[in-house]
Amino acid sequence: MNRGAIAQAADRFSRDYAHFIRRTPLLKLPGKALGVANDEVWLKLEHLQAGGSFKARGMLNRLLANPIPASGVIVASGGNAGIATAAAARELGVPCEVFVPTVCSPAKQQKLRELGAKVVVTGAVYGEALEACIARQGETGALMTHAYDQPEVVAGAGTIGREIEEQGSGLPDAVLVSVGGGGLIAGIAAWCEDRTRVIALEPQLAPTLHRAREAGGPVDVAVSGVAADSLGAKRVGAIAWDITQRWVRESHLLADEAIREAQLVLWKEFKLAVEPAAAVPLAALRAGIAADARRACLVVCGANLDPATLA
Amino acid sequence: MNRGAIAQAADRFSRDYAHFIRRTPLLKLPGKALGVANDEVWLKLEHLQAGGSFKARGMLNRLLANPIPASGVIVASGGNAGIATAAAARELGVPCEVFVPTVCSPAKQQKLRELGAKVVVTGAVYGEALEACIARQGETGALMTHAYDQPEVVAGAGTIGREIEEQGSGLPDAVLVSVGGGGLIAGIAAWCEDRTRVIALEPQLAPTLHRAREAGGPVDVAVSGVAADSLGAKRVGAIAWDITQRWVRESHLLADEAIREAQLVLWKEFKLAVEPAAAVPLAALRAGIAADARRACLVVCGANLDPATLA
Repeated sequence: MNRGAIAQAADRFSRDYAHFIRRTPLLKLPGKALGVANDEVWLKLEHLQAGGSFKARGMLNRLLANPIPASGVIVASGGNAGIATAAAARELGVPCEVFVPTVCSPAKQQKLRELGAKVVVTGAVYGEALEACIARQGETGALMTHAYDQPEVVAGAGTIGREIEEQGSGLPDAVLVSVGGGGLIAGIAAWCEDRTRVIALEPQLAPTLHRAREAGGPVDVAVSGVAADSLGAKRVGAIAWDITQRWVRESHLLADEAIREAQLVLWKEFKLAVEPAAAVPLAALRAGIAADARRACLVVCGANLDPATLA
Repeated sequence: MNRGAIAQAADRFSRDYAHFIRRTPLLKLPGKALGVANDEVWLKLEHLQAGGSFKARGMLNRLLANPIPASGVIVASGGNAGIATAAAARELGVPCEVFVPTVCSPAKQQKLRELGAKVVVTGAVYGEALEACIARQGETGALMTHAYDQPEVVAGAGTIGREIEEQGSGLPDAVLVSVGGGGLIAGIAAWCEDRTRVIALEPQLAPTLHRAREAGGPVDVAVSGVAADSLGAKRVGAIAWDITQRWVRESHLLADEAIREAQLVLWKEFKLAVEPAAAVPLAALRAGIAADARRACLVVCGANLDPATLA
């Protein structure tokens, strides 16, 4: 996983899949528009990506980089990774099985079915659905996607860093990124290396990377709270661990109240309908993190939410 | 009202008000992403403008182009024009009175109050609120803004055409625009002149410009339906009539069902939360209007909606 792998993923997307992977807009605003002291705030509107989150990039890259058997692809996820895998599989015309636990809402199961996936509901918690998924993969030989800990998935996410640099005519002084399992920040940091400050942000109630940094290595953590739906990985990925250890100097935690407030600001003042995870970077900026960055880029990573929660 | 007035408005915005008037993104997609035959579809995301609609441009331009008396500004509108006037007045630090009829929802009144406006609720229908507003203006001498029929308001809207040309590195082959009172299309057509096809689109249930074209001049029409909230002007503006007669060759009507469908596509497939009026151009494109335009630009004009209506 390096800049070459990211450039290769970007080439794959732009050459043959520009109708699927969107070059999402970079909205540049004066800091004053957001009530912060930074000269410029760049919003990378990645919640407008196919499937409603950045994950389509990683999943399509994973599928394009590997032979896909007749049994298709398989994934365990009731969230954005499942949606992105199903969308990428539909795009390539291959079968897709998605394993979700019984807590997965009927609306999410319905969305996966609309994308053509076969949904298997099994187990009370995610871990049990994952176990069943792995067992099934052993039987069918389907290509499995992981939400964040596969090199092609990280490289796909890294194309966001490349686009920010192109669209901004250079990198900003800081890039603020939400962390769940770490795939997004790993991709962006691998692209940026030491050419800007990549800042890791997590909810206090889902401190996967933060606790790993305290412990000196990945550890299991309890996760809950307003953004657990998409940032609720229990353990940071091995790839993300390595890359963030090398390139990421700062990791901060945000309170759920601040995240929810930032989500409502993005809707009410900017008409961006985003999920709580996507509002974490703005919550951080509003809390004074990266206040000294002249140009701060916020990665707005997903929009899979019930719009009624914005009212 | 000409290209010079539009350029002047754009200069005003970018010089001193870049923290208020946003240079909204132009999202370019292959037509295939939207299931249409056009090579490229450009989405001008003007629903991300301050106040949640394009109207902030016209209102701020109106306020900047005129002396504002101590009594401030005044407007009759429970919709986007009222919100935009209140937001522009707050930006300039001047008082604002907004007259709305009793049918104006408490949520909208609350939004106007949050923007610092004094809300006067009077009259059963819009016409009565307007009458009271005009009487009040006679007493106070406040600067009145009109939702669409003032030259500065049209010039402000015209800056959208100028931005599309800059962001697209040239004009597209067609620009598809929703019409209420006609301020938006007049501004865009005045910028584009005969250098592209500017296409007028209205709901079948609010055919203000279409009926005027049939009658040979502005006439009162009955308005209702899913987009009446923002496209419900009963009569096309005099300025819009003149400009569209000169530059607009095509006017089409869309069924409410097609508009609502396009609104849901924009949310479900593209995570753009927009009001029905903003989905009319996509409804038209999906119906085959402008099918021969290699590059078609859809102006996505507003996002003042109850998000629960997207669920």
